[in-house]
Amino acid sequence: MSRHFAEELDNLRNRLLEMSGWVEDSIFRSVQSLMEKDELQAQQVMHNEAKINRLEIEIDEVATRLLALQQPMAADLRFLTAAIKINNDLERMGDIAVNIVQRSLSLMREPLIKPLIDIPHMATLVQAMVRKSLDAFVQRNAGLARSVLVSDDAVDELRDSVYEELISFMEGDPQAVRQAVNLMFVARSLERLADHATNIAEDVLFLAEGVEVRHHAEAQ
Amino acid sequence: MSRHFAEELDNLRNRLLEMSGWVEDSIFRSVQSLMEKDELQAQQVMHNEAKINRLEIEIDEVATRLLALQQPMAADLRFLTAAIKINNDLERMGDIAVNIVQRSLSLMREPLIKPLIDIPHMATLVQAMVRKSLDAFVQRNAGLARSVLVSDDAVDELRDSVYEELISFMEGDPQAVRQAVNLMFVARSLERLADHATNIAEDVLFLAEGVEVRHHAEAQ
Repeated sequence: MSRHFAEELDNLRNRLLEMSGWVEDSIFRSVQSLMEKDELQAQQVMHNEAKINRLEIEIDEVATRLLALQQPMAADLRFLTAAIKINNDLERMGDIAVNIVQRSLSLMREPLIKPLIDIPHMATLVQAMVRKSLDAFVQRNAGLARSVLVSDDAVDELRDSVYEELISFMEGDPQAVRQAVNLMFVARSLERLADHATNIAEDVLFLAEGVEVRHHAEAQ
Repeated sequence: MSRHFAEELDNLRNRLLEMSGWVEDSIFRSVQSLMEKDELQAQQVMHNEAKINRLEIEIDEVATRLLALQQPMAADLRFLTAAIKINNDLERMGDIAVNIVQRSLSLMREPLIKPLIDIPHMATLVQAMVRKSLDAFVQRNAGLARSVLVSDDAVDELRDSVYEELISFMEGDPQAVRQAVNLMFVARSLERLADHATNIAEDVLFLAEGVEVRHHAEAQ
């Protein structure tokens, strides 16, 4: 591998880490804006999204150029196609954080029906999943990638308990319906963020071990 | 371009069309299972998902191999990276149809609170978007791709009207909450299917015209 090509791959890795840093920040701030009724945090998520979108286009261009110019060998080729997919996942995650912020803005003018406990807990788990999945990618660390798959189950359990609680609220108090619907969509968004982090971890496992772990459920 | 490489690209195109055929079929059957309370349609969507998942892995392998072995020129390179992304979108769409089926199975034992009108209308629009986006990809037809972006706005409007109607139902009748929540998630799933078709159409526009239409909102 030429020194130039190695530098370009390093650059690509760093851009993806930068992008995942913005995504983590957006997840944190989106839930903060909900809990603290803080419009500034919400605006910051919008600013982050614009940065994330620019990075997506830039990373796509770099990865495609490296594929075209360098005729990379098998391992680098897999790295580059994984980078294109991970880039795509991170961009969607930036959009989902914006969805959370839209719900948070709808909820800003009224007191919450109950203190939020499971939703911030989900957000903390999801942020850690994003960080771990990207660290696993950069380090080609299969063990770290596997730990992300385990967290996904924990997020799904929290989502179920949020849903059940909110449905009970709505059944008990028609006034709570609109607010509870907004909170359900927040829980759903957090679950989708966890799914994207899981996709990234699965790509890393394929990259690190050549093992296809996608769709493992139906393979059993 | 060698004849062999041209044949391989044709094969890849046909595999993607086959996959989108299964996705369209899944969208149709998922909403049929909901409207007709038909468990067989629901099972067929599960079968489709297994086929879609196998195709995803196969298409990824073919595209990556062609990138590796053939050192493709600029246009073919863009085609191959678009194929990898579209493959990813189609696989997610198969999963979303399964999500709809899960809601449909939850609703199977009880009469619906009202006849479904907007939801099947959304489903018909979304199926057409999937077909058009893939036809646009195969034909490199930018006009067809643009028509998909227009349909996305129509789907968003239908979703808003479904949400408002269901929220009113829940506010008026606590007994309707659980069913209305299930139907909201169906509308949300259909909207996400439309978003994936839109992503595909945007990839096609980039492929056909070299114009970056992603994130057009914030570029204005």
